[in-house]
Amino acid sequence: MISNRDEVTRMILSAKVAKGIKWTDVAAAIGLSKEWTTAACLGQMTFNKAQAEIIGEVFGLSDEAMAWLQVTPSKGSLPTAVPTDPLIYRWYELVNVYGSTIKELIHEEFGDGIMSAIDFSMDLQRQPDPNGDRVNVVLSGKFLPYKSY
Amino acid sequence: MISNRDEVTRMILSAKVAKGIKWTDVAAAIGLSKEWTTAACLGQMTFNKAQAEIIGEVFGLSDEAMAWLQVTPSKGSLPTAVPTDPLIYRWYELVNVYGSTIKELIHEEFGDGIMSAIDFSMDLQRQPDPNGDRVNVVLSGKFLPYKSY
Amino acid sequence: MISNRDEVTRMILSAKVAKGIKWTDVAAAIGLSKEWTTAACLGQMTFNKAQAEIIGEVFGLSDEAMAWLQVTPSKGSLPTAVPTDPLIYRWYELVNVYGSTIKELIHEEFGDGIMSAIDFSMDLQRQPDPNGDRVNVVLSGKFLPYKSY
Amino acid sequence: MISNRDEVTRMILSAKVAKGIKWTDVAAAIGLSKEWTTAACLGQMTFNKAQAEIIGEVFGLSDEAMAWLQVTPSKGSLPTAVPTDPLIYRWYELVNVYGSTIKELIHEEFGDGIMSAIDFSMDLQRQPDPNGDRVNVVLSGKFLPYKSY
Amino acid sequence: MISNRDEVTRMILSAKVAKGIKWTDVAAAIGLSKEWTTAACLGQMTFNKAQAEIIGEVFGLSDEAMAWLQVTPSKGSLPTAVPTDPLIYRWYELVNVYGSTIKELIHEEFGDGIMSAIDFSMDLQRQPDPNGDRVNVVLSGKFLPYKSY
Amino acid sequence: MISNRDEVTRMILSAKVAKGIKWTDVAAAIGLSKEWTTAACLGQMTFNKAQAEIIGEVFGLSDEAMAWLQVTPSKGSLPTAVPTDPLIYRWYELVNVYGSTIKELIHEEFGDGIMSAIDFSMDLQRQPDPNGDRVNVVLSGKFLPYKSY
Amino acid sequence: MISNRDEVTRMILSAKVAKGIKWTDVAAAIGLSKEWTTAACLGQMTFNKAQAEIIGEVFGLSDEAMAWLQVTPSKGSLPTAVPTDPLIYRWYELVNVYGSTIKELIHEEFGDGIMSAIDFSMDLQRQPDPNGDRVNVVLSGKFLPYKSY
Amino acid sequence: MISNRDEVTRMILSAKVAKGIKWTDVAAAIGLSKEWTTAACLGQMTFNKAQAEIIGEVFGLSDEAMAWLQVTPSKGSLPTAVPTDPLIYRWYELVNVYGSTIKELIHEEFGDGIMSAIDFSMDLQRQPDPNGDRVNVVLSGKFLPYKSY
Amino acid sequence: MISNRDEVTRMILSAKVAKGIKWTDVAAAIGLSKEWTTAACLGQMTFNKAQAEIIGEVFGLSDEAMAWLQVTPSKGSLPTAVPTDPLIYRWYELVNVYGSTIKELIHEEFGDGIMSAIDFSMDLQRQPDPNGDRVNVVLSGKFLPYKSY
Amino acid sequence: MISNRDEVTRMILSAKVAKGIKWTDVAAAIGLSKEWTTAACLGQMTFNKAQAEIIGEVFGLSDEAMAWLQVTPSKGSLPTAVPTDPLIYRWYELVNVYGSTIKELIHEEFGDGIMSAIDFSMDLQRQPDPNGDRVNVVLSGKFLPYKSY
Repeated sequence: MISNRDEVTRMILSAKVAKGIKWTDVAAAIGLSKEWTTAACLGQMTFNKAQAEIIGEVFGLSDEAMAWLQVTPSKGSLPTAVPTDPLIYRWYELVNVYGSTIKELIHEEFGDGIMSAIDFSMDLQRQPDPNGDRVNVVLSGKFLPYKSY
Repeated sequence: MISNRDEVTRMILSAKVAKGIKWTDVAAAIGLSKEWTTAACLGQMTFNKAQAEIIGEVFGLSDEAMAWLQVTPSKGSLPTAVPTDPLIYRWYELVNVYGSTIKELIHEEFGDGIMSAIDFSMDLQRQPDPNGDRVNVVLSGKFLPYKSY
Repeated sequence: MISNRDEVTRMILSAKVAKGIKWTDVAAAIGLSKEWTTAACLGQMTFNKAQAEIIGEVFGLSDEAMAWLQVTPSKGSLPTAVPTDPLIYRWYELVNVYGSTIKELIHEEFGDGIMSAIDFSMDLQRQPDPNGDRVNVVLSGKFLPYKSY
Repeated sequence: MISNRDEVTRMILSAKVAKGIKWTDVAAAIGLSKEWTTAACLGQMTFNKAQAEIIGEVFGLSDEAMAWLQVTPSKGSLPTAVPTDPLIYRWYELVNVYGSTIKELIHEEFGDGIMSAIDFSMDLQRQPDPNGDRVNVVLSGKFLPYKSY
Repeated sequence: MISNRDEVTRMILSAKVAKGIKWTDVAAAIGLSKEWTTAACLGQMTFNKAQAEIIGEVFGLSDEAMAWLQVTPSKGSLPTAVPTDPLIYRWYELVNVYGSTIKELIHEEFGDGIMSAIDFSMDLQRQPDPNGDRVNVVLSGKFLPYKSY
Repeated sequence: MISNRDEVTRMILSAKVAKGIKWTDVAAAIGLSKEWTTAACLGQMTFNKAQAEIIGEVFGLSDEAMAWLQVTPSKGSLPTAVPTDPLIYRWYELVNVYGSTIKELIHEEFGDGIMSAIDFSMDLQRQPDPNGDRVNVVLSGKFLPYKSY
Repeated sequence: MISNRDEVTRMILSAKVAKGIKWTDVAAAIGLSKEWTTAACLGQMTFNKAQAEIIGEVFGLSDEAMAWLQVTPSKGSLPTAVPTDPLIYRWYELVNVYGSTIKELIHEEFGDGIMSAIDFSMDLQRQPDPNGDRVNVVLSGKFLPYKSY
Repeated sequence: MISNRDEVTRMILSAKVAKGIKWTDVAAAIGLSKEWTTAACLGQMTFNKAQAEIIGEVFGLSDEAMAWLQVTPSKGSLPTAVPTDPLIYRWYELVNVYGSTIKELIHEEFGDGIMSAIDFSMDLQRQPDPNGDRVNVVLSGKFLPYKSY
Repeated sequence: MISNRDEVTRMILSAKVAKGIKWTDVAAAIGLSKEWTTAACLGQMTFNKAQAEIIGEVFGLSDEAMAWLQVTPSKGSLPTAVPTDPLIYRWYELVNVYGSTIKELIHEEFGDGIMSAIDFSMDLQRQPDPNGDRVNVVLSGKFLPYKSY
Repeated sequence: MISNRDEVTRMILSAKVAKGIKWTDVAAAIGLSKEWTTAACLGQMTFNKAQAEIIGEVFGLSDEAMAWLQVTPSKGSLPTAVPTDPLIYRWYELVNVYGSTIKELIHEEFGDGIMSAIDFSMDLQRQPDPNGDRVNVVLSGKFLPYKSY
């Protein structure tokens, strides 16, 4: 009896290591970006029926688990408000150090409003560099203005 | 008597509004990106002497304030661990929702290590879009591997 | 020398009590809803130039203060994560008690996504009732779907 | 052996996904609003005997589980003080951004007191809109005045 | 220029010590209970015009301060979530140790609902006792039932 | 194997619901107040041998569980520093809003010291009222003075 | 205008350093232990009139400051829940490491109850030791039993 | 399979209640103070091989459990930063109320440094008193000076 | 079915105590420093295939467990933000007391930037000393400068 | 009127920037290490009279400020439990990632006890390296064993 999406995420992670599956292969299997696919497998997005069946096949999940993949999950992948994992912390630090800068520059360019985290996409690539390869990430979010009424 | 960088940041913000200065103009004045320049003006980066003098002129700062601009500041621009401002929160949410995804994909591509938040640059642009313009942000950070020893 | 919007908010509150001004009168003066106008006066929204001048006249503000009213503020009006004021706490409690219900019902009706807090409006009215008048609040927010990519 | 209501909530959620039950159908089955019914199924309200038996039949619960549905639960559906799920967070943000506004406007209209979160009802509807459908929520709470004594 | 009620509370406390005023005398002056009067002087309740003028005379307050006494304050008198003062902590401990007991007994007697903290009064008296006098406190709050809808 | 009192509390709660036992009946069975008895059953007080045996019979507990009822428990019945359950929160709010008032009035009457939460009793009764019945609670705690030395 | 005891504590500390006063001399001046006297000077205890006048003379305080010394203060001398100062932290660590031990041993000897922190005294002495002198602290608190009722 | 010391502590507590063992008897069995012995049984100190075998016999532990008794544990016996149990809280309160006093007096007597919590012992005794017996606790810790270098 | 690295860490710790294995022997077995090896066994570093097999043999792990040793773990070994274990706390205290000093001295020597915690190594040795042996720890981290762009 | 050491620290920092003083020069002036000297100037250590006078001359401090330099300060240089400054955070991260490793290795080598943070010294040096210079830090702390009693 499965009572939340986290249990399915744990099944996926367990199968992934046991079977040596790669996220890029999972993404190829459902024909979407590796970014969205991985987030969805980690319990942050909702699969439709066809996608859930492919994911179920890839990781060997039960019908019940596949049903849960189609239920909108309770999101948020950090166990603590300030993340302790060094890789994820560096991103938190970017928000901490550059947060006020991002706010100022978006407001200077667009006025009052936000960059959407829902109408949003991300693309992460390796950028070869003689001084050591770099992680290149492009974030794209729709600007949503505050309106007076 | 100035005893920390925050006081200088407040002087800069006060002068910026009073004089109607734009961050892009400040960046042009010191010949660097608007992202780095704004972060530095907001107390997150260190100016060299020549830059500090230009900044001092732009905002009408005292010699003492200019001296402080050349001192490495205590960084971090968020007043609380979880930011309350909606624009900045969306970025925190991205780290929360996509944090584990970013971690998985960087490790799959590069192995154990992090994306540097120090050897790092950011470029923020408006991307015209018929469905509403988008905020496009390119983040570039050197990959730093953990090494066994 | 003003260095943040909070100082202007304090000036407005001080003048409001000293002069006995009502929020509904302020709203009438700028021709917008009392909800948006009050939020803006309390430092949560950005005024345009014409509005800022009217507000400045109503509360007797300096030119510098009026300039700050046109700068996008750092938002969030609660001094603590869990509010202590009984009236505001009741709203926090609604989110706490009904939060999972709202989530379930929106997802059942719309699928995965959120109700926007930016493309949003609020209307608060007294509803006469023989058992004691009621506060009636209508919240309207655009549904924003998560999209796969 | 069941020792708290949370266990029953998990049984309900598990059965809901496994059987593909909809909240609106559950509400129809007990003849109450979808808002109250969902909150009650999620462990925030107390069922009477007749309601508990219908719920038990819908979700296939044991007699012991049905007995627990009639016990007043320990309420609060958020796992953290500041919710991490994007949909629920938007509501928290509304309280954060508009909290002081709501307080000012209720006090201006009614004087000192609160809007009850107990003598309260909620109605959530889809509002069709050519620019994208909207979530419309009507909240109604009795005004309770503070009295001197 | 006064911009919040806390400043008036500090004026009252300062005058109280300087002039050696007693709370029971203040209560007698406005003809209400010492409990409500003290809470109001400490910034937790709202005075009407006539009461504010008496309070103003007792403590020697300015007209502006008296105006603030008539504005509903932002409530909550504890500087931290868990109080550090030993006397106040004992009350927090009572809620901590007896909280679940109070909940069980009210639900057993009244069903699902709460004891109002708004339609509420308190009476605190010295109870002589040969083993050491006791503090006797009577709390009275209206029961408010949750209603299904 | 039982290793803490919480496990026994869970057994009691489970049996209570399954058997439909009332706290007032349990109190009658051991001949003490319903307030103390309920607190003790919820793991906040220590039973003596005779009481533990009666409790054990009422709820059908094992000898090992009865032994644990006679061990002083680790007290505190709130899962979070600020309680989320609406009924218990109202009590926390009373401490928050009236805390400084209680402190002032006890000190004015008794001098420096505290109201004991140990040499303490509580009596909770329904008070019929045409405007809606009220919860009446009498708290009695010995005054303990600070002494200089 | 003084509005809380903390301001008087700061005056005392300022005068103490400027004049090179020792706590033991202050204690001798009012004829009480150095432990109680220091705690009282640091804003944790209440002086009577005669004592306040001596303290006022020793530290050169105004009449208003002396009046505040006779008002029961809001107690608690730690700025954070977990103290950061190494000396004070060691005491917090003792409570952390030995807390459960102290609880077990007091209950084994006395039964359910507490060691009073109000009917309490402390004596701190240097104990010469060839391996390095030791700090010896004797704590004495009345045992207060929980009573059933 | 045992994977941390806490599991052994739970076995000890379970056996203690089931068998009615007293801490003073355990201390006598290994020939050390009741304070150190209890702390060690509660997972705060490390036993040597001979001691572990005696403890194992007293409580009926397996060889694996006895091996864990000889591994230095991860220390700290409080589940929350601010303890909720009334007895342990009183000790936390002592640190809170008297912390700055202890700091001042140790520095006045010894200079800059700390009282060790490692080179430390504690002795807890009942002190008969006609006004109610008292808990007497002697704490002895080596003074460790900060040294310049 | 293993679903995270923590489970493998618990297996390793369990086997270590049961078999009496030493970290220095594990380090010798894989031919790396005891510092890196221990950190990796405790779930903070990633093993390669050959290393994982040796570790698997030393501790008697399953193939699935060995696969998990090669997956980059979610790092951070402290259960709370401020550690409670006395040994680990001393290190936290060093960061607390000396943090601003380290920052000042690195900036004075190197300019703005950080000492890497990724391109980093540590060497911990016993240093014999007639006044009591000392723990000597050498930390070496690459300096990474902030660059303007 | 100075009432705490922090005010003196701010004077020192203000003078340091205004006069362009280096920590290594301050250390040379009082003939001690740059590590201890900087920590002391930042309010973490206590100067003796002779040292205070030199520091006073270097930074141009008043007699009152010099007196405060000789008073043991309240220590701890981090404004938040988890530091936000990137350089200091890296050190916190080391404690987080390597904390359990350090604990295991010290216990394996020395048995139960701690590495003193009081009988402690630190030496920070630049280590030239063709791949980028490194920060080398040697920490030396006396091992203090827990003793049974």
